[in-house]
Amino acid sequence: MKQLIVSIWVVLVFCLSYSVHAQETTRLLSLEDAQRISDAAESRARQDNWNVVIAILDAGGHLVALRRMDGTQIGSVDVGIQKATSALKFKRPTKVFEDAVKSGNVHIISLPGVVAVEGGLPIRDGDRVIGSIGVSGVTSAQDGIIAAAGLESF
Amino acid sequence: MKQLIVSIWVVLVFCLSYSVHAQETTRLLSLEDAQRISDAAESRARQDNWNVVIAILDAGGHLVALRRMDGTQIGSVDVGIQKATSALKFKRPTKVFEDAVKSGNVHIISLPGVVAVEGGLPIRDGDRVIGSIGVSGVTSAQDGIIAAAGLESF
Amino acid sequence: MKQLIVSIWVVLVFCLSYSVHAQETTRLLSLEDAQRISDAAESRARQDNWNVVIAILDAGGHLVALRRMDGTQIGSVDVGIQKATSALKFKRPTKVFEDAVKSGNVHIISLPGVVAVEGGLPIRDGDRVIGSIGVSGVTSAQDGIIAAAGLESF
Amino acid sequence: MKQLIVSIWVVLVFCLSYSVHAQETTRLLSLEDAQRISDAAESRARQDNWNVVIAILDAGGHLVALRRMDGTQIGSVDVGIQKATSALKFKRPTKVFEDAVKSGNVHIISLPGVVAVEGGLPIRDGDRVIGSIGVSGVTSAQDGIIAAAGLESF
Repeated sequence: MKQLIVSIWVVLVFCLSYSVHAQETTRLLSLEDAQRISDAAESRARQDNWNVVIAILDAGGHLVALRRMDGTQIGSVDVGIQKATSALKFKRPTKVFEDAVKSGNVHIISLPGVVAVEGGLPIRDGDRVIGSIGVSGVTSAQDGIIAAAGLESF
Repeated sequence: MKQLIVSIWVVLVFCLSYSVHAQETTRLLSLEDAQRISDAAESRARQDNWNVVIAILDAGGHLVALRRMDGTQIGSVDVGIQKATSALKFKRPTKVFEDAVKSGNVHIISLPGVVAVEGGLPIRDGDRVIGSIGVSGVTSAQDGIIAAAGLESF
Repeated sequence: MKQLIVSIWVVLVFCLSYSVHAQETTRLLSLEDAQRISDAAESRARQDNWNVVIAILDAGGHLVALRRMDGTQIGSVDVGIQKATSALKFKRPTKVFEDAVKSGNVHIISLPGVVAVEGGLPIRDGDRVIGSIGVSGVTSAQDGIIAAAGLESF
Repeated sequence: MKQLIVSIWVVLVFCLSYSVHAQETTRLLSLEDAQRISDAAESRARQDNWNVVIAILDAGGHLVALRRMDGTQIGSVDVGIQKATSALKFKRPTKVFEDAVKSGNVHIISLPGVVAVEGGLPIRDGDRVIGSIGVSGVTSAQDGIIAAAGLESF
């Protein structure tokens, strides 16, 4: 019986030490995650015949997946990537910046990396930002709807 | 009789103008094309547990699709895109540049846009280059095998 | 007597050449200076559990020291460096630009190198700008408090 | 007794599910880690009166810490950062690229992101690359010695 209790303690301490270590770690976004999010976003876009670029970044801001639907303006490749980059770098939806600028805080546009147009969303695992999605091609409000639909599938 | 000759002339001129016009068109690479090529490339890569980035560009050198398999080095995102860009811009496999440099023509590295490493291939419709594929992540010879497998599906 | 006048002339000419020469020198910001300023700034940030990037530049606008506190958004690396760059290049606190934009002078955002958000301060030796500090990570007012605390230690 | 066994099972399953989750995670490089590595590298450099830039990046290739010792050439700021970036992006010491080029594989210089000069090393946690160090300022062999001394302290 005493041995058993000791065993339980060992297991508990192991779990505890493990969870302490876990606080310094972060989950990685897989290609499978990225494609599922992209599929959901593309599916939402097709519903309304919207043509967009969908970009998915990892926690370091590097592309995991990108797709450009037929007919989408070329400029949306960079816009989609940069919306995602902005959401990732500043850990917030790019709509927050759009709203700020619209309400008079124009100066934040001068910050390097800020894209102040809806359509970029961070992807979170609990509190931690582990990636982001950026959508561009239609109106910024529509881009935002598509990005949100993608994120919902995660 | 005179009317007949005039009619023939009209038809001939129409045909001529048509064929002149036809020479100015090009097939567009669709997202469906790009995903099919990417699927074939990814499938070939999985056969040998190779992790790579697969990038597909359109005729203008802009991304249509990109995917990064789990565990692929981050640097391969840019390398994959730039291999594809180089193959598209110069209408030839990047292996041609690699072979040239290896045989002593080192100076061509100084050309802006040249990536002299195998793994980038133009995508052709007849004579015309309508896009390109770039693969990066394993050895350049293996990247080349994956890119070729992708292109074969087109 | 004649010899005395010559001696005086020699001394005067020497002093003159010296003071002319002296106007062309500038104190160099050392790594020790930069780390002391950074330590003071970091210490102020920790007081309120603020997570920020602290960047210190020399008179030429090149990094002498940078540190990113745990949990700071990635975007603050570039923002911190660019706030410092802006303060250095234009010899004024970036808050001056923020106030200008807020009071209606939006056009100055179009100047290359201008970041119109508080948090960047020039480091002076007398009249001369010999470097700068840039802080980013919390609100711009808080970034400004941290930057000022760093500068105070100099 | 039966209840106890059930409890143990619950704990074990918890640990197991936790460790499965852990396979997808990665340890984060802290500022404390980065400063300890930088201190060790700087200390090694001072031994021989070498002046260098020491740059530490996180897993995403973003600066955690940088310091430039007095008298170091300005160009070493970018070189140090790019050596670290290259080591991180390609998960190998930059010396591997230097050796490859020296032995005739000049073509790899054309890969975007490749710096083929010793002085950049990946920082690993087991098999996983969680950051990198880049050193520049003296000869590439000396830069490499300093980087290795930094890494040893980790």
